[in-house]
Order: sequence, then C-alpha cells, then structure tokens
Amino acid sequence: MIRLTVLYNTPDDPEAFLDYYEHTHVPLAEKLPDLTRITWGKTIGRNAPYFLTAELVWDSPDAMNAAMASDEGKATAADVANFATGGVTMVVSEGH
Amino acid sequence: MIRLTVLYNTPDDPEAFLDYYEHTHVPLAEKLPDLTRITWGKTIGRNAPYFLTAELVWDSPDAMNAAMASDEGKATAADVANFATGGVTMVVSEGH
Repeated sequence: MIRLTVLYNTPDDPEAFLDYYEHTHVPLAEKLPDLTRITWGKTIGRNAPYFLTAELVWDSPDAMNAAMASDEGKATAADVANFATGGVTMVVSEGH
Repeated sequence: MIRLTVLYNTPDDPEAFLDYYEHTHVPLAEKLPDLTRITWGKTIGRNAPYFLTAELVWDSPDAMNAAMASDEGKATAADVANFATGGVTMVVSEGH
C-alpha cells in the first residue's frame, strides 16, 4: 500500500476553492489509473494547520508512479495550480 | 466519514521510533472503538516534510469523539508522548 497525503493551506477564496476542488479537481483525480481509493475533506477544529486534506491510495509504488506519469496524472498535477492559492504539501507514505 | 491524519516529524531516534510505533502504539490505536480503518507508513522521498503519517477513519464525528473520550482513546493519546520526540501534527477532516 502506498498513500499520497495532500495537505492544502487556506486559499485566498475558500468558497471558490471548495467548489473548484469538488467539481473539477476531484473528478480529474478519480481518473488516475489503478487508484485504490481517494478520500478528501475540509478540516475541522480551531487552528487547524491545513484547510483541506486528501488521501490517494494505490497498491504499490510502481502503480502510483505509473499513475503520476500518465496523461491523467499530468492533468491532475497541472490542475493544482488552478486553485491551490494558499500552497500545498504532498507526502508519500509506504506501509500498512 | 471523518478522518484523523497524524503527521509525525523526524524523531530523535528513528529506529527506536519505528519499533515502538509498530509494536506498541499501533496495537493501542487498533483498539479504538468503532474505528473503520487505520493506515500508517513511513514517508518516502527526499525532503519529505514528515517522517511518518497515519490515518484513522470513523463513520462519523460522534464516533470519533466517543473513541477519543474512551479509555482506549485516552491510552492511545497519552502514549504519543512516549515516542513522538520530534513532535506531531494532527488534522481532522470531514468529508468524502
């Protein structure tokens, strides 16, 4: 199992971000080849260190790398700049 | 769906951390009531912003809050100080 954790900072326009994210970015990400699971959600709680988090899971690093190198992967990655005005942190974890 | 994302910074002793985490902390966390899923893994890649990440999922905020307030939740939370020498960031996201 390999997991990509995506941590978005608070954007300039939170409402516009959420609308774009749900209706444009997530549909792109859902097309990533061999994706096992995608989950995402706005953070809750005061002083949350991030605005929205997402998790994308594949069975193996090879599957993730192939997905990222695909046309769908390139389109998804390129789309991030269209809405992530507050910046984004991505972390890849391999494990359990 | 509600998801707790736990982001550990690099600890003082990475090998000791990994051993304790896998063999003591994860077994405690797995006892959390009504936990839907727990996944965890060491990060990979150069300049990874965190050392290890974990994800704990429940069906609802109420289920998560009840788990955290339980004896198992208190034990799991108290155990973090026993190994997370580099610090830890926790983020709760509600969503999809």
